[in-house]
Amino acid sequence: MSDLKAYLREQQRMIAAALQRFLPRSSVRPSTIHRAMRHPVFAGGKRLRPILCLTAAEACGGDSEHALAPACAVELIHTYSLVHDDLPCMDDDNLRRGKPTTHVLFGENVAVLAGDALLTEAFAIIAQTPERKRYRTRDYVTELASTSDSRRLIGGQIMDLEGEGKALTRAQLVRIHEAKTAALLTSSLRLGGMSANASASRLQSLTDFGKSLGLAFQVIDDILDVTQSTEKLGKTAGKDATVEKATYPAILGLEKSRQEAQRLTRKALTALHPLGRRAARLHQIAHYLLDRDY
Amino acid sequence: MSDLKAYLREQQRMIAAALQRFLPRSSVRPSTIHRAMRHPVFAGGKRLRPILCLTAAEACGGDSEHALAPACAVELIHTYSLVHDDLPCMDDDNLRRGKPTTHVLFGENVAVLAGDALLTEAFAIIAQTPERKRYRTRDYVTELASTSDSRRLIGGQIMDLEGEGKALTRAQLVRIHEAKTAALLTSSLRLGGMSANASASRLQSLTDFGKSLGLAFQVIDDILDVTQSTEKLGKTAGKDATVEKATYPAILGLEKSRQEAQRLTRKALTALHPLGRRAARLHQIAHYLLDRDY
Repeated sequence: MSDLKAYLREQQRMIAAALQRFLPRSSVRPSTIHRAMRHPVFAGGKRLRPILCLTAAEACGGDSEHALAPACAVELIHTYSLVHDDLPCMDDDNLRRGKPTTHVLFGENVAVLAGDALLTEAFAIIAQTPERKRYRTRDYVTELASTSDSRRLIGGQIMDLEGEGKALTRAQLVRIHEAKTAALLTSSLRLGGMSANASASRLQSLTDFGKSLGLAFQVIDDILDVTQSTEKLGKTAGKDATVEKATYPAILGLEKSRQEAQRLTRKALTALHPLGRRAARLHQIAHYLLDRDY
Repeated sequence: MSDLKAYLREQQRMIAAALQRFLPRSSVRPSTIHRAMRHPVFAGGKRLRPILCLTAAEACGGDSEHALAPACAVELIHTYSLVHDDLPCMDDDNLRRGKPTTHVLFGENVAVLAGDALLTEAFAIIAQTPERKRYRTRDYVTELASTSDSRRLIGGQIMDLEGEGKALTRAQLVRIHEAKTAALLTSSLRLGGMSANASASRLQSLTDFGKSLGLAFQVIDDILDVTQSTEKLGKTAGKDATVEKATYPAILGLEKSRQEAQRLTRKALTALHPLGRRAARLHQIAHYLLDRDY
């Protein structure tokens, strides 16, 4: 485990360095927008999605260096969606990762534009991924766009908004989580695999792993929102109940939600079997995510 | 001129049909987001940017059919930027092209997400542009991303916001207009040329044409905001003065602004010379834009 922690720290360091290179410096004019873009990117995120991207590339025998562009691209997509999600007209959240959100520091108008700019930058960066025999720039861009579009990431946010205050079925909740969380985690893994020229069957293993891991991850997030303090979460706790958001604990209860998280993790780990010993790190990461104190 | 009008109508028809194909139908779930995306796209825009894209492809000896993907992509970039620009926390405009703006019809939160989704869709679509000997998917995506990013389109919006209520110099105003308007018009032309495998020197002619045309276009927009009614404009007239926005008429006066528009048009037309007779349509379009009643 200490070995895993050192590995994660090293990945985080590589990703932060690459993001520093890819993003315009704060001094570039107009400097307001560049400071506003950099604030949420360097506000202490876990870098889960880019780490999955780099680790998937390694699991497919690739060089993580070649996966840095897609890794940064998925991190920027994730970051932009948080910036817009936190806006007063959306979830209206002032705190994220223990820091003031972008609109609190820069104003709503700049936060809208900073989110737009991060989204745009994600596509500028994904286009720099080295092409492989099996995968071309078009494949990378299409993967990133389709996982972020009005059916997946944005679709999930809409379903989430429309579900507030309503009694959703478990199937509806799964659909929201697949679109809002699991899709981008899955594409992070897939893009890493693609940068390593992974075969179709390996890409399928990563896809199956990502879907189950993504759902498990979201179930645990829902549980933590109920059981933990704002201080420990680094974001406003108990928020879901306040806005009557449908969550696993609300629908299944806490104990069954924990069982569901464990079932999904087992399913995720089973999906890794075909990748063999090279997938050891992905295994470890899945365990690490699920050993959060939920 | 009646010949030009028929040409423009035919281009508009082709573009509308392509946008219908590229965008998810309203019935696709979650349908709210797809209705909200389609509203501003089909609310009666002039399709100036996509028409320039198709016409530039023809001027470089290409088939406008192959330029439909970039044409739709630039139109979606333009549309998303209007949706976000009209938000209450931005320009707070209720009327656009004579119709209620997206947030008026769908709420602020959905309008934010619809803008995000149109931006994302633009990149999904640009990646479908056929590759040419000189231009690859990476070139198309990079062109679209860099013209829309925090230095150009979004940078221009930030400079615009930051300039409100301040006395700007003419040089500062030109910088805003280049970033906010001329860059995307120029890239529309360039992407059309690229889809036709244009040589570097032809692409340069299109670039020079676009820069001057874009500035001329913005000067005229500024003039019309002062001289025309809300009804005729299809958007709130006199808005610039209300928010103390720096404009050409405010800095130079009306008469000098008109002279400047004419000087820029002559410069634009001169840039077309190297393209020869094939650029006749671009010529006509430039004249048509500048013969607006300003």
